[in-house]
Amino acid sequence: MSEPSQPSRRERIREIIFEAETPAGRRFDVTLLWLIGLSVICVMLESVPAIKRDYAGPLQVVEWSFTILFTLEYLLRLSVVRHPLRYARSFYGIIDVLSVLPTYLMVFFPGMQALLVIRVLRMLRMFRVFKMVRHVNGAELLVRALYGARAKITVFFSFMVAISVIAGTLMYLVEGPHGDFTSIPTSVYWAVVTITTLGFGDITPVTAFGRFLTSALALTGYAVIAVPTGILTTELAKLDGDDSSEACPSCGVHGHLPDARFCRRCGAPMS
Amino acid sequence: MSEPSQPSRRERIREIIFEAETPAGRRFDVTLLWLIGLSVICVMLESVPAIKRDYAGPLQVVEWSFTILFTLEYLLRLSVVRHPLRYARSFYGIIDVLSVLPTYLMVFFPGMQALLVIRVLRMLRMFRVFKMVRHVNGAELLVRALYGARAKITVFFSFMVAISVIAGTLMYLVEGPHGDFTSIPTSVYWAVVTITTLGFGDITPVTAFGRFLTSALALTGYAVIAVPTGILTTELAKLDGDDSSEACPSCGVHGHLPDARFCRRCGAPMS
Amino acid sequence: MSEPSQPSRRERIREIIFEAETPAGRRFDVTLLWLIGLSVICVMLESVPAIKRDYAGPLQVVEWSFTILFTLEYLLRLSVVRHPLRYARSFYGIIDVLSVLPTYLMVFFPGMQALLVIRVLRMLRMFRVFKMVRHVNGAELLVRALYGARAKITVFFSFMVAISVIAGTLMYLVEGPHGDFTSIPTSVYWAVVTITTLGFGDITPVTAFGRFLTSALALTGYAVIAVPTGILTTELAKLDGDDSSEACPSCGVHGHLPDARFCRRCGAPMS
Amino acid sequence: MSEPSQPSRRERIREIIFEAETPAGRRFDVTLLWLIGLSVICVMLESVPAIKRDYAGPLQVVEWSFTILFTLEYLLRLSVVRHPLRYARSFYGIIDVLSVLPTYLMVFFPGMQALLVIRVLRMLRMFRVFKMVRHVNGAELLVRALYGARAKITVFFSFMVAISVIAGTLMYLVEGPHGDFTSIPTSVYWAVVTITTLGFGDITPVTAFGRFLTSALALTGYAVIAVPTGILTTELAKLDGDDSSEACPSCGVHGHLPDARFCRRCGAPMS
Repeated sequence: MSEPSQPSRRERIREIIFEAETPAGRRFDVTLLWLIGLSVICVMLESVPAIKRDYAGPLQVVEWSFTILFTLEYLLRLSVVRHPLRYARSFYGIIDVLSVLPTYLMVFFPGMQALLVIRVLRMLRMFRVFKMVRHVNGAELLVRALYGARAKITVFFSFMVAISVIAGTLMYLVEGPHGDFTSIPTSVYWAVVTITTLGFGDITPVTAFGRFLTSALALTGYAVIAVPTGILTTELAKLDGDDSSEACPSCGVHGHLPDARFCRRCGAPMS
Repeated sequence: MSEPSQPSRRERIREIIFEAETPAGRRFDVTLLWLIGLSVICVMLESVPAIKRDYAGPLQVVEWSFTILFTLEYLLRLSVVRHPLRYARSFYGIIDVLSVLPTYLMVFFPGMQALLVIRVLRMLRMFRVFKMVRHVNGAELLVRALYGARAKITVFFSFMVAISVIAGTLMYLVEGPHGDFTSIPTSVYWAVVTITTLGFGDITPVTAFGRFLTSALALTGYAVIAVPTGILTTELAKLDGDDSSEACPSCGVHGHLPDARFCRRCGAPMS
Repeated sequence: MSEPSQPSRRERIREIIFEAETPAGRRFDVTLLWLIGLSVICVMLESVPAIKRDYAGPLQVVEWSFTILFTLEYLLRLSVVRHPLRYARSFYGIIDVLSVLPTYLMVFFPGMQALLVIRVLRMLRMFRVFKMVRHVNGAELLVRALYGARAKITVFFSFMVAISVIAGTLMYLVEGPHGDFTSIPTSVYWAVVTITTLGFGDITPVTAFGRFLTSALALTGYAVIAVPTGILTTELAKLDGDDSSEACPSCGVHGHLPDARFCRRCGAPMS
Repeated sequence: MSEPSQPSRRERIREIIFEAETPAGRRFDVTLLWLIGLSVICVMLESVPAIKRDYAGPLQVVEWSFTILFTLEYLLRLSVVRHPLRYARSFYGIIDVLSVLPTYLMVFFPGMQALLVIRVLRMLRMFRVFKMVRHVNGAELLVRALYGARAKITVFFSFMVAISVIAGTLMYLVEGPHGDFTSIPTSVYWAVVTITTLGFGDITPVTAFGRFLTSALALTGYAVIAVPTGILTTELAKLDGDDSSEACPSCGVHGHLPDARFCRRCGAPMS
């Protein structure tokens, strides 16, 4: 007879922090995203020598402000969530810790080498940006399409890597170690840069046969650029069909074709 | 009983200038497009030092001719349109003003710094080119597909930027500030140039691990190039289906071809 | 009562030369394609300074052999075709003349400047390669898809050019004429190279804002690479449906959907 | 009455080595893939001058271990397969021999030139990687799609090569042999690098008209990147439809989803 009772204060805070359905929850998430964005920009600016020299003090204040703010946010999340340990061990729980830890570590290990190590960890703070994904529904379909096509995509990239290794070795032999192609790993790096149509130009062929091979490799990369697109488009179209279909009124199965008049699973007529 | 009365002279001019359905209106728009194109080319040529030096006089004459012509056109538009103020505040009304203003401002502020500022505004004249879009129907479908897929596209580009920021920071740490990767913003710029398969080659990795990361980033960019294509293709296919499909008035089936006169399912005539 | 009479000798030669359905016709066309390919390679080799110096004599012999062979072929085509004048004026007729003319002109105008002009014409011989297209059926579908989508493609490329002009001008203003961006035309060239994800690296931004704009332009190019693909895929899918459908047995109209039970034009049942 | 008798020991080994259906067979194949991967990495590392100098001994030991292991594997394959000669002549049989032969040849021909030749063959060991393909089902669909679209793909790449040859020749004439465009073959190489949006930047235009042509070529390459994608997507969609579609045994309608148990049109059970 009793409806779910009035949500407790803790429950309401949990909803604001973890969910984005309520206006307050959405406001919280958008504010957080802006703060994360600003903190990432500060980390980036701090790495510019000229800025580091002139604004070392203010940047450190901002850095610490963000760290304390995000630490409080993490503690609040831990205190309101139903299973704190499960949250702490979750993907986002770990990222939340890693995105504040480097600043604290900097206090205890002020040495030069330590600083360099800290930078590696500090970079992980940017994973916060991925939280954004939770708020947009469109992402799920993409992830499902990528998952459904994972076998084809794996085969495709195995081929790409195999072609790069073979083409790189060939170029090493053709161009010889006296030009830019000093070793097979370097040549394979060049082959990947070429087949993806990236083309830095730091390593370039000079012999006639090397240029012929380069042209062939470039055309191959240009041609097979179609393959992942074809795979993904087919997969997305299939999923889209699934999404737009009604459930069978009799057995509840989804994914009927648009003109289905009978459920393909139980044979009951579709209304 | 009364048919719409003879359109007034002002109404007829309005139709020529604002609409492209009548032969006169189409001629006016095509002429205008050619003039805009020529004026844009003149602005571009004026920036070439050798041309500026030798043809400063003629270019200024041409510049002023276009400015006066476009000013007259703007005044004519204002005088014949039904709601002059609404037009003046519209997107195209503002662009029309901005595309003649810089030349006039140049008279009153002949200083060097002012000139530089004027150039920024002058550049806006090129927005006129966008008017072209109004005349081709095909654009609308594209815009609708892009609008329909905006959530997925936003997620995709958030991911791209996030990957670029992380990859750029990693490369800054791996390659060290002694090579080309002098700061995180520079490295992120490099990561964007790499993931989009642009590859200028002004900044290139030299360490083995840096090159391995570059290969991974290039392959990622090459792979996810499929994602926006897949999204847009699915969306376009959906819109195309929507456009051509009236339901059969007799059996309600959808998905008829655009020229269908009879339902392909029940044979009843389509209204 | 009389079947079409025995084809005359001239008619049989015409079939061999102009059609590829008979085994002899196919053999003729394949041989011709190989000869054209070889002659193109000779023209290319002649331009290499080292080869030109050492093999000037043999190359001239080969050049004249091909020219005489192709001249004889052209005269044969003229003599067997039903309407010689119509052939001579057709696209392929003009290309056939242009692909032998430069060698003959070289005799009468042996001067240096003339030689340069002749080279421009000689290059047109390569258009022969396009004949290849006539033999493969797959090409027609592509051309029809491109034709069907011409409005959307025109709009798309107008946008691309407009964005390149605006982005190029912005970069000219941002980077200033002291760096690589020496004039607006040069900057627009750079913008096209960037938005197409080509990225030569001969012109690169050095200011922070310039690099930010470059990143935005690269991402734009990377994103809208989807647009022509989406357009063409939709168009091809539509055409493919058309091709695979049977004609209506009653009115002969094509392009029915795969599950059509009644002709969409005349309402007659599809067998 | 008799079921197939207990498989012999030889038959069981054959199944483990040649098939991947049994757990033992899968384990064998995965182990082999790891070993092949490691051996390829060793070949690559040996080409790096610094590594070759410091670790020549260990690398040779590893090299010989892999060679002996793969030789034993090859002999085992020969001994258990039903038709040894047919296997030895098959694609994989030849690759298996070629991937061990170079190391043995190195013993008998220790000269410098011979070593270079051996390297060419050694590179073929990397073809082992292609074995990977046998284990993933997704590859077959791709290969079938590529095969089904081979006519269209051939036409497309003929066009690409033709455009590259013409554009390269034009650039040779426009830029002149005093810049980077020293000969037609070099210019054609540049044209391929440009049209595939690769853009090394080792050869770049400097004249205004050359840059205009480059822009046009880049936009062409950017536009027609859609063509192979469109072709392949259509083909893949067709194949996907083909695969999932048994005809309904009662009404003959095609295009059922893979898990359909009842016809979506007439409701009859699918066999």
